Amino acid sequence: MIQSAVNSRKIINDPVYGFIGIPNDQIFKLIEHPYFQRLRRIKQLGMTHLVYPGALHTRFSHSLGAMHLMIQALNVLEMKGKKLTEEEKSGAMVAILLHDIGHGPYSHALENSIVGKIKHEEISDIIFKQLNDISEGNLGVALAIFDHSYPKKFLSQLVASQLDMDRLDYLTRDSFFTGVSEGVIGTERIIKMLDVIKDNLVVENKGIYSVEKFIIARRIMYWQVYLHKTVISAENMLINLLRRASFLSKNGVPLFTTPALQYFFSKSLAVDNIRDDPEFINYFTHLDDYDVLTSIKNWMSHTDKILSFLSKALVNRQLFRCSLQAEPFDYFYIENLKDRISENYGIDEKDLSYFLYHDTTSNYAYNLKADKINILFKTGKVSEITEVSDQLDASMVSQAVTKHFICYPKDVEN
Amino acid sequence: MIQSAVNSRKIINDPVYGFIGIPNDQIFKLIEHPYFQRLRRIKQLGMTHLVYPGALHTRFSHSLGAMHLMIQALNVLEMKGKKLTEEEKSGAMVAILLHDIGHGPYSHALENSIVGKIKHEEISDIIFKQLNDISEGNLGVALAIFDHSYPKKFLSQLVASQLDMDRLDYLTRDSFFTGVSEGVIGTERIIKMLDVIKDNLVVENKGIYSVEKFIIARRIMYWQVYLHKTVISAENMLINLLRRASFLSKNGVPLFTTPALQYFFSKSLAVDNIRDDPEFINYFTHLDDYDVLTSIKNWMSHTDKILSFLSKALVNRQLFRCSLQAEPFDYFYIENLKDRISENYGIDEKDLSYFLYHDTTSNYAYNLKADKINILFKTGKVSEITEVSDQLDASMVSQAVTKHFICYPKDVEN
Amino acid sequence: MIQSAVNSRKIINDPVYGFIGIPNDQIFKLIEHPYFQRLRRIKQLGMTHLVYPGALHTRFSHSLGAMHLMIQALNVLEMKGKKLTEEEKSGAMVAILLHDIGHGPYSHALENSIVGKIKHEEISDIIFKQLNDISEGNLGVALAIFDHSYPKKFLSQLVASQLDMDRLDYLTRDSFFTGVSEGVIGTERIIKMLDVIKDNLVVENKGIYSVEKFIIARRIMYWQVYLHKTVISAENMLINLLRRASFLSKNGVPLFTTPALQYFFSKSLAVDNIRDDPEFINYFTHLDDYDVLTSIKNWMSHTDKILSFLSKALVNRQLFRCSLQAEPFDYFYIENLKDRISENYGIDEKDLSYFLYHDTTSNYAYNLKADKINILFKTGKVSEITEVSDQLDASMVSQAVTKHFICYPKDVEN
Amino acid sequence: MIQSAVNSRKIINDPVYGFIGIPNDQIFKLIEHPYFQRLRRIKQLGMTHLVYPGALHTRFSHSLGAMHLMIQALNVLEMKGKKLTEEEKSGAMVAILLHDIGHGPYSHALENSIVGKIKHEEISDIIFKQLNDISEGNLGVALAIFDHSYPKKFLSQLVASQLDMDRLDYLTRDSFFTGVSEGVIGTERIIKMLDVIKDNLVVENKGIYSVEKFIIARRIMYWQVYLHKTVISAENMLINLLRRASFLSKNGVPLFTTPALQYFFSKSLAVDNIRDDPEFINYFTHLDDYDVLTSIKNWMSHTDKILSFLSKALVNRQLFRCSLQAEPFDYFYIENLKDRISENYGIDEKDLSYFLYHDTTSNYAYNLKADKINILFKTGKVSEITEVSDQLDASMVSQAVTKHFICYPKDVEN
Repeated sequence: MIQSAVNSRKIINDPVYGFIGIPNDQIFKLIEHPYFQRLRRIKQLGMTHLVYPGALHTRFSHSLGAMHLMIQALNVLEMKGKKLTEEEKSGAMVAILLHDIGHGPYSHALENSIVGKIKHEEISDIIFKQLNDISEGNLGVALAIFDHSYPKKFLSQLVASQLDMDRLDYLTRDSFFTGVSEGVIGTERIIKMLDVIKDNLVVENKGIYSVEKFIIARRIMYWQVYLHKTVISAENMLINLLRRASFLSKNGVPLFTTPALQYFFSKSLAVDNIRDDPEFINYFTHLDDYDVLTSIKNWMSHTDKILSFLSKALVNRQLFRCSLQAEPFDYFYIENLKDRISENYGIDEKDLSYFLYHDTTSNYAYNLKADKINILFKTGKVSEITEVSDQLDASMVSQAVTKHFICYPKDVEN
Repeated sequence: MIQSAVNSRKIINDPVYGFIGIPNDQIFKLIEHPYFQRLRRIKQLGMTHLVYPGALHTRFSHSLGAMHLMIQALNVLEMKGKKLTEEEKSGAMVAILLHDIGHGPYSHALENSIVGKIKHEEISDIIFKQLNDISEGNLGVALAIFDHSYPKKFLSQLVASQLDMDRLDYLTRDSFFTGVSEGVIGTERIIKMLDVIKDNLVVENKGIYSVEKFIIARRIMYWQVYLHKTVISAENMLINLLRRASFLSKNGVPLFTTPALQYFFSKSLAVDNIRDDPEFINYFTHLDDYDVLTSIKNWMSHTDKILSFLSKALVNRQLFRCSLQAEPFDYFYIENLKDRISENYGIDEKDLSYFLYHDTTSNYAYNLKADKINILFKTGKVSEITEVSDQLDASMVSQAVTKHFICYPKDVEN
Repeated sequence: MIQSAVNSRKIINDPVYGFIGIPNDQIFKLIEHPYFQRLRRIKQLGMTHLVYPGALHTRFSHSLGAMHLMIQALNVLEMKGKKLTEEEKSGAMVAILLHDIGHGPYSHALENSIVGKIKHEEISDIIFKQLNDISEGNLGVALAIFDHSYPKKFLSQLVASQLDMDRLDYLTRDSFFTGVSEGVIGTERIIKMLDVIKDNLVVENKGIYSVEKFIIARRIMYWQVYLHKTVISAENMLINLLRRASFLSKNGVPLFTTPALQYFFSKSLAVDNIRDDPEFINYFTHLDDYDVLTSIKNWMSHTDKILSFLSKALVNRQLFRCSLQAEPFDYFYIENLKDRISENYGIDEKDLSYFLYHDTTSNYAYNLKADKINILFKTGKVSEITEVSDQLDASMVSQAVTKHFICYPKDVEN
Repeated sequence: MIQSAVNSRKIINDPVYGFIGIPNDQIFKLIEHPYFQRLRRIKQLGMTHLVYPGALHTRFSHSLGAMHLMIQALNVLEMKGKKLTEEEKSGAMVAILLHDIGHGPYSHALENSIVGKIKHEEISDIIFKQLNDISEGNLGVALAIFDHSYPKKFLSQLVASQLDMDRLDYLTRDSFFTGVSEGVIGTERIIKMLDVIKDNLVVENKGIYSVEKFIIARRIMYWQVYLHKTVISAENMLINLLRRASFLSKNGVPLFTTPALQYFFSKSLAVDNIRDDPEFINYFTHLDDYDVLTSIKNWMSHTDKILSFLSKALVNRQLFRCSLQAEPFDYFYIENLKDRISENYGIDEKDLSYFLYHDTTSNYAYNLKADKINILFKTGKVSEITEVSDQLDASMVSQAVTKHFICYPKDVEN
């Protein structure tokens, strides 16, 4: 059983689960490390709080929450007779604890503007290995579980699959802090129903309704929260704001930026060279939500009118109107909007893309091509969930839903 | 606005919504009437508490809860500019308050055994009219709303349709008391999104995800709670127990029964003659969960071994094993079970049906043939939900799911 | 660690804690026993549901909930290094599971009317010993913990003391089902702070505010719920109703009663003779809420006007007016009420006590004379809570608050 | 009734209350104003999230929440027959909405370091008047209610008194986001029990337990959260950090600071001159949590070792050890700590105050000298709560509890 040989007094208050216990000293040290503490300053849902004001929770809380669920899941598997070593259990906990360690602030927006081609997975990998060096190589099992090379596949599946502790925590937590009850799922029931067959994670038949609910709740949360049209608007404003600032900076226009953000404006980064560059990780791990917003606040009075307009709009929450629909937007409708923007704002055609964003966004509830969710029957038979569910139609649930969006300043509206 | 000219101090504590205010004196009097107080003694979910021990909530609480939601819904409609008279508002509240007034104890089981062909809708109708007489005819609008003859159709739809206050309350309430979080729905959000177009209830486009979630949550609650295999088992045991007692009684075997239950054992009731029979309503409104269970408890020591066996099994929760599956059960499997039952219990073939129940049960999440759920777009367009939902496939969600079940004593299992 | 060698699949849904796991086969068998299943038919709070309609939860759920907290408490103590054998852990769980096994329906009311001088503790003791015989003597440690004779005193304190698992569960549970948020306490925090010093239960200093809150919340629940004036009214109506029925029965007046209730009407029971009387336990364990209410329902049409009046009033919730105050009621005020009752109801003086109840009720939040609640400081010092609390004044909190009440039919009011 | 003539579609998601409706256009415009949007960037509880990681909620959410409770309270008073004009209702809502508008980031810390003698009440007053000018003088009633000069005193009491909507919201909200269930109070019940006697707010007798619980819960929240020793530690580190930065800045040492923070470092502000200084309000309303933390992050690499030490400690959460006790700390104990700090850190005596903080902190649950909480009895009698409560001892509850604290780096501990 977990938690026995432990720093038993350390508990963290969490409004979602009540208390989260820290299972061992190694994990305690990782949590105390500045790389992990940094996650306290990175909101889980970026700009979503402009729509759901309670959604200020951080990747720090989410990572701890996912670890808490991992501990419960490992307990359940042990009670069902799976043999796990202390090293494996701790490894799985560390792997989920650090699964987001490579995320920067406003991840999606930064990857689409200044951080360039470097994905957070790459950075995770680098940081994870640094922490391993600091931990005298003790994170070996955790690393293997994290990069899916550990033989007991189910441990990696608990960290990253279509029914992992990451998803269970973020749905529960995002639902709690946004107040969107549509995202409430039966986390505890799902975890109680987990089992392992031939090294793969399965869910007992009795838990099938809870898994269906989880898949559907996740899809609803996508459209109700993560891809809410006003959230799309705010995020695209942020992307274009940073794109403008970066453009100005590269063209020598003076610009207030915090030192950490300055680094990213001044560099053209590629994965290949960051691996051997200690400066990159140093700056990256100093960058957080505070750098981004503080810089934007100061750009409100910049002389570049595009930069200052977008900065004021985002800071004071004068968000662009955003429409979201299944069909592409009409060509003439878009051209008409462009004309009005040019006219209202005195904007050249080449700069119109800072004021009008149109693109598509898509989401699928369940991916048949990825690690599937498998259901275990009492007879021992294992079936993929959409084959045995009355509620989920495989072709429907596994199909990406794509929507077109267009965002533009409210005052140019017809 | 509602609640203004009111017995403003009367509030009822409700663990689901906090407080339920009683909106006017007429409603206060109806709640105080013995016909309504009787609902305190009728559990909303019959035998379900044998599986979910918290599910002891009553039709009394549910009726008040549904009225509470009605008040909120009417407030929303008024704020959106719909004109409603005090009489209409009070009528809608009374209609939902009394929508279950014709339910007896363990409704489904009694309708399948002793009450015979009389449906609870018939009895509702009779009681409703009696209360109208007592209220000096003031329930006219309520009655019209209740029987769907009132011109403003949306008022009736709030009482009984596929998105009515009844369903919103029972899903929320049953989810609360069973502890099945899969049933949690965004009641408040749905109500805020209600509107009326051409006298029909619609939901604003922004509420579409909440409605999808509601449809799906309802389906999940069916299989997870209402048609849970152990609930099916308990309910069928009850049906057969009452069938046996009725058979013995009609054959002159002495039997403890409470007076109210005795009446139903001794009569062959038909709708036609109950309307003019004051005795029927008198006995019916004295019959509740207490009569049924008290009688069963006393049958545990009856000399009829079928009756005593079933009574003991139900009271002491030695429930029959129940299997539920998509395909029919194999003929030889059933025959083999029958043989074992005959052997183990020394039962004649003619009595086997008391020990082995096999049948089908079915449920659909959404009925395309009934009153549809309509979505209102900003453009003014109104569309049926499955036409515009990405999540709900019309053919799938509106198709009845039918399952076969078989229940039998645990000790005859292979 | 607990739960390891276990019937791991058995879990019970509980709306308060989510799931309650059954820790071992012995406990599973005790739960399945008819003596324990009987608690499903005994409401935890008797007539309180007439004021708080959600309060229909049973001693069955409460007993399971208290066991669930015991499991958590034992886990905490083990993690803090206390050595406990499997037998001791299971013993403590059984002791709390069965702590209410001797309760009959509407305990307080029956003890004040028909059950006479036999306390539920006596009956618990008899049933506990019977279950021990059935369990082949395996409940020895549980029995010792239950009757406070086991050497490790803290195990008994977890079962019955001023900070036991019984109180923690009932406050949490009663608060949940009544909807009275004033009773919400930090159960999880208190349990995490438990420790043992010299075989006595203590609470770590960090938990002091949670304990203060617990003491105060308990007092509030007393006055807001347990001793709510309308609850006092209903309970006293029940006491007097049963007293009347018993009186009639003993005087040969024919009366509908269920067989189990009939036994108690016909006997004059004393502790001494029930120990050797198998009939007593047989009837007692068949008696539950259903016998009492079913009988009362039938008394509504009895020819004795006192019995029928009280029965109708209770069943239809026409409860007596009740006043509660710090000072005794004025003599002339009472006499005046008596006169009006005599006049309105045509009641002889000797029967007035069926229509007018006046007495006192009292409660103390914390009893300095009983097992004290002790706080452990980091220095190792242990102090009684009121000595170290800024919030709790020993003389105030430990003083019984006594109130006078008077209840009488509403229509005789001045 | 409120909410009738309204921008009825505007609703804000709030995890605490579900939805918060915006009652009218004037209030909608105030919420949209940059002065109010700024509150999105000021955490309600400053550094408390370092102890309770969920406590990231802002003054924005709190202000909306308090307005939501105000709407409910006004509804209750109207239903009880109090006549209120639309202007008064809107005025009371605006007054509570803006009650925190003068708060800067980390209020307490800034008032103790750089902002100097200017209290947030002063700034509130200035901003409130500016908003009134912008609103064409329409905030007159709101202003009068806010500064307690409006004749209907109860409106001001709803905004600021010992039982105001501010306290009801912050206790509920802080309890929700910290996860400290000890702070849960019966907000809804208290509001339902409000009434007005002779222009003063009272609580009906039936709500007395809820008010007692509120007073006690508030005291518990003080010691468990607001004055938690680790929160005291973090806040004092922040105070001293800012004090150091201010000192360096005033002595001409180059220092990264955001422009808004720079302004406060460079000025000696006094109430008198800020009133006529548009620059002050301009900078003040641009200052938020982001300026403070971004500056501190950059000070981590400053050459001043005191500044960099404190900055790193706060950012990486290497918080000072803090002890809290009733008695003053021993002189020799403190001197010994100072010696160790000097030695470990090579600190001069004059700088020791940056590394060792000792002071007192105090709190009282209920202030007998302020606006009292009054209870209304059915007889019409009104009594101050401690006179009629069984639970609250006036002398105890109204007495300030003072504690001594001492904070110092962990590694100097004996």
